[in-house]
Amino acid sequence: MTIPAVRTFDNHTPLVDTELLPGRGTGVNAAHRMYEHLIGIWATGVIEAAHDLGAFTALISGPATASELSSKLGTDLRATRVLLDGLAAYDVVERSRAADGQAVYTLPPEMHDIFAPEGLYSLVGKIRHDRNVAWSAWRNLATNVRTGARNSDGSQQLNQISEEDYTSLVRGINFWAPPIAATLATALREQGWTDGTGRTLLDVGCGTGIYSQLLLQEFSGLNARALDAERIIPIANAQAHRLGVADRFNPEIVDFWADDWGTGVDVALFVNIFHLQTPESARELLLRSAKALTEDGVIAIADHIVDEDSTDGNTQNRFFRLFAASMLATGGGDAFTVHDYDQWLADAGLRRVALLDTPMHRLLLVKRA
Amino acid sequence: MTIPAVRTFDNHTPLVDTELLPGRGTGVNAAHRMYEHLIGIWATGVIEAAHDLGAFTALISGPATASELSSKLGTDLRATRVLLDGLAAYDVVERSRAADGQAVYTLPPEMHDIFAPEGLYSLVGKIRHDRNVAWSAWRNLATNVRTGARNSDGSQQLNQISEEDYTSLVRGINFWAPPIAATLATALREQGWTDGTGRTLLDVGCGTGIYSQLLLQEFSGLNARALDAERIIPIANAQAHRLGVADRFNPEIVDFWADDWGTGVDVALFVNIFHLQTPESARELLLRSAKALTEDGVIAIADHIVDEDSTDGNTQNRFFRLFAASMLATGGGDAFTVHDYDQWLADAGLRRVALLDTPMHRLLLVKRA
Repeated sequence: MTIPAVRTFDNHTPLVDTELLPGRGTGVNAAHRMYEHLIGIWATGVIEAAHDLGAFTALISGPATASELSSKLGTDLRATRVLLDGLAAYDVVERSRAADGQAVYTLPPEMHDIFAPEGLYSLVGKIRHDRNVAWSAWRNLATNVRTGARNSDGSQQLNQISEEDYTSLVRGINFWAPPIAATLATALREQGWTDGTGRTLLDVGCGTGIYSQLLLQEFSGLNARALDAERIIPIANAQAHRLGVADRFNPEIVDFWADDWGTGVDVALFVNIFHLQTPESARELLLRSAKALTEDGVIAIADHIVDEDSTDGNTQNRFFRLFAASMLATGGGDAFTVHDYDQWLADAGLRRVALLDTPMHRLLLVKRA
Repeated sequence: MTIPAVRTFDNHTPLVDTELLPGRGTGVNAAHRMYEHLIGIWATGVIEAAHDLGAFTALISGPATASELSSKLGTDLRATRVLLDGLAAYDVVERSRAADGQAVYTLPPEMHDIFAPEGLYSLVGKIRHDRNVAWSAWRNLATNVRTGARNSDGSQQLNQISEEDYTSLVRGINFWAPPIAATLATALREQGWTDGTGRTLLDVGCGTGIYSQLLLQEFSGLNARALDAERIIPIANAQAHRLGVADRFNPEIVDFWADDWGTGVDVALFVNIFHLQTPESARELLLRSAKALTEDGVIAIADHIVDEDSTDGNTQNRFFRLFAASMLATGGGDAFTVHDYDQWLADAGLRRVALLDTPMHRLLLVKRA
């Protein structure tokens, strides 16, 4: 197999020294590659175990030896050393030597926020959600491939994410926002935006509101209307205060399908909303957006949008297709293609004006046809 | 955190386009990196689901569309497409387009052997073992870090691998052998071996016998004595016939600790044996080897031997430390250091003569002191 040339990126932790293998295209090489994929579960397991034990909370307060940490956490000494060495293997902690030769483990400063529950870009919500849902869902993915994630009466299974899990998860994916918000801000400046005075952003399904809030920081004259369910709005409100933009962040409890969205919207923003739609509901969202939009307004859709025309091995497409598998595992959602979106846009009297790559999404910009 | 410079290798499937992120050392970057680690479970899940459904067996018989495969396997069409696209994202299958625009999925020839139960370098045994043991072990790693994988009476937990699992697993890790056997063969040639006539290899805990068998192929005059338990020997025997070396492959059912190992051994080989020992049993194995060895004989230990002196981010050390975490998860075993081995060797009147890297092991060569 000629594996398409992929760019390699910083995040990789190689566990197989492939330079010492025979040439490409042999079964032995392929087996080593598959083995490395099969042990992907180890990364999840090591990090989540450290989370479960409170190891990150302990390391946020300062570096520690295995012995100090096992006393603090009430864990077995040798096993704690093995766990810490495992974290160091993935560069989650730094491992250095004290004067007495003992290994000392340090959680680097930029990781504190990630493993603290209240960190702005904390992954704790994502980890909690995965502890509850992901292991069993992925362990039993074959079942949903058999049934198509349908119930025995043929109806589509709802996404397994419970309300509580969603509330947890919604805080755990804030980290996706900065590069997406930066890409959108650049695009809006190219459309003539300066400080956004007189402009209105409509954030449909705002979650924590992080996208709106970062844009409000970018554009000091912008106002945002942020729509979501009743149990989410307090989270968004608190975070708007934390980020100093509460005076221009206006949350509204809205039923997207029943309630009116108003008018005069300059940018209608949908982040991770479309992948949970059916083709019918996707069309409906676009029609409702079009009604709310000013004449030269923009719809901005950040989602897992597969571009069939991009090169083989495109990193975004890979992630989006696996995200679709993840949604299949937990029941519900899909990664739609550019082609799908173009058809829905045409049906709603809209047209695509840009498709921009971000690290783990694409940003689709839309105007009236 | 300054992540130590790591060499990147062929096996990586990047899922985050880190080039589009802000600079290193920011929390947002670190969160993207941790997220990519946390979704390591996806690779395991996608490949094992395809195995569970018989998708690989079907694709070994020829390329197929999602529609053809879902008919054959009795699975949901859309979900089958999502699964196949997930496999393509990890370069497990190739995805191309038929004339009618439908995606066609091909399992490349070098992958057939890997996913066929009877393939020489098949991973099926490893996958079966992981289905039985690994998911729950890794999901609950924190428990073993608390207890040190000890039973409530304080005794060390035995490795969870049942006899049946072991028999399955032992066939599933044959793929490790070729680069290790090649490295050992080169070292023996450097010691003056030509075709190995008159030489005897003792393979202690031979498993399928793959290491002996590859060395018998390399050295046409060599004879091997292969020691293992009664239920393993028939597997080794059958494979020796398959590889055409049965006439020089002599299996012996032996209790390593009670029975005599004989004498006149030129090479005593231990592959993945030492990581399951305690310091006491490791010393005992070395003493027994020394008694069996000719005056200029060699002990060859292929294992997960951590070299504390190698550079930060060394790929072998990373893998070995995670392998230790894997053994902690399933209860039993450790990755010992070069320092540990050197002490045991000194105690047994032996000395280290070489330490050689292979893709996923180190090969330690030992002689009389």
